[in-house]
Amino acid sequence: MSFFDRIAAVRTWDPDAFRPFVVDGHRVGRVRHATARALADFPDVFRVDAAAVTLSPRLADVDARSRAVHDVAETLAARGDAPTPRGEAYGVSETWATPARLRLDRGVVPLFGVKSYGVHLNGFVRRPDGLAIWVGTRAADKRVAPGKLDHLVAGGMAHGDSAHDTVVREADEEAAMPAELARQATPVGALSYVCEAESGLRDDTLFIYDLDVPADFTPACRDGEIVRFELMDVADALARVRDSDAFKFNVSVVMIDFFIRHGVVTPDEEPQYPELLQALHGAA
Amino acid sequence: MSFFDRIAAVRTWDPDAFRPFVVDGHRVGRVRHATARALADFPDVFRVDAAAVTLSPRLADVDARSRAVHDVAETLAARGDAPTPRGEAYGVSETWATPARLRLDRGVVPLFGVKSYGVHLNGFVRRPDGLAIWVGTRAADKRVAPGKLDHLVAGGMAHGDSAHDTVVREADEEAAMPAELARQATPVGALSYVCEAESGLRDDTLFIYDLDVPADFTPACRDGEIVRFELMDVADALARVRDSDAFKFNVSVVMIDFFIRHGVVTPDEEPQYPELLQALHGAA
Repeated sequence: MSFFDRIAAVRTWDPDAFRPFVVDGHRVGRVRHATARALADFPDVFRVDAAAVTLSPRLADVDARSRAVHDVAETLAARGDAPTPRGEAYGVSETWATPARLRLDRGVVPLFGVKSYGVHLNGFVRRPDGLAIWVGTRAADKRVAPGKLDHLVAGGMAHGDSAHDTVVREADEEAAMPAELARQATPVGALSYVCEAESGLRDDTLFIYDLDVPADFTPACRDGEIVRFELMDVADALARVRDSDAFKFNVSVVMIDFFIRHGVVTPDEEPQYPELLQALHGAA
Repeated sequence: MSFFDRIAAVRTWDPDAFRPFVVDGHRVGRVRHATARALADFPDVFRVDAAAVTLSPRLADVDARSRAVHDVAETLAARGDAPTPRGEAYGVSETWATPARLRLDRGVVPLFGVKSYGVHLNGFVRRPDGLAIWVGTRAADKRVAPGKLDHLVAGGMAHGDSAHDTVVREADEEAAMPAELARQATPVGALSYVCEAESGLRDDTLFIYDLDVPADFTPACRDGEIVRFELMDVADALARVRDSDAFKFNVSVVMIDFFIRHGVVTPDEEPQYPELLQALHGAA
């Protein structure tokens, strides 16, 4: 196993298995062909052909589109063709910079393969012998990646949310971190990837934050999503990312980016350093 | 003008204008069609057809290849078909991780469009009101980018050189920086790009280093490549990168990466933040 395997794991999808999901003339997602066939049962909402699934142009505004798609999702979930809605609505658009064309329940985001955004916070501690990083263990009953290792703070965000505010809110909810500390987190980049998920496709962008955590702060589990926090030596974290799948799949790639930005992985020791950077950002 | 214009400037080339340069069965570079026609004058060294320029397989080892190509380069330079050799040999290979198959004078690297490697050092100072960055002004007689703004330290490296040692050596030669300070530079990533150059193609990978420069160090011009150093407020540097071409073309993209990694450009203020990251690393 290697860093490249970790990166490949978030970039594995077959374009031939999906067709575009079009709203208001823009491709905002991708659906499996089987999902497209299921959506064809609702001709008032979706126009389905071999080339695309198109939201009916008669649904002219965000509220009408969101209600109609939500009703379909509930019907599909009831008959076992879709995940159960979670009761949390995400805005959907073709890019982060364009207004939401539709609101969609978080639970069915992969079913429609629309873009999803989140924040991931690397909480690290400078020790005399090097860096250490705060790592959480996900609850065994999480739907995604149960029991895997996770960041100190991570969470999804609704389209148009402030990334910085999301970090501060999730830091409180997940790690009991005071707002005055969480506000010191610095944005340091983003990673985007597309990979197949159980119910469809993930098209994710993660906004990455670093926080130099003072030695006197210890995170506490609060909302039940994380059951344990530990401060892990960076060399230990690196070995686990590289040699195991102990970390949640997308946390692994954010950690690789962290190792590179902090000089833990170096060009003089990693012969494929240029290729690693390109793979991380999707150019390879 | 925008950050995206700066990035586009290092990624502008027309694949149809070049054909592969093949050594030992591997594509190690790309040559303009006009260059290919000139190389056809030397059938003992190059096999030239419409599909590729191939180094003669009779040149079986690195020394024989390097001598033969060097002789051709000098002949081409003498008749005005190539830049003058600089007397500095770079190793040539298809990747950083594979051994050099050929040595080539630095002056004709773009003529053959082979991969070139360098280090760029962001030397920054933490001030109470924010970051400042050391910026050099290139000499007016430099062949590439005369008079443009440059990094505190930057330089090319031979294939297989240590990146860290190159930083320390160039820091001494260009900025009169003591080795004990230069050795504290941290590798933080790499940027790769391909763009057309006057004599051919640049296929560059830059290994990027950050150095937190103490307030009591002031760089001094030493080897004549940089004629002036100044400590520039990061907001001022950002505006010059975004709104002007005051910085050398490839220094601009390393600066954009710096602004992102240090939270100077943020996801909440730059609506195209995900696209900026992807463009920087070549995925867009």
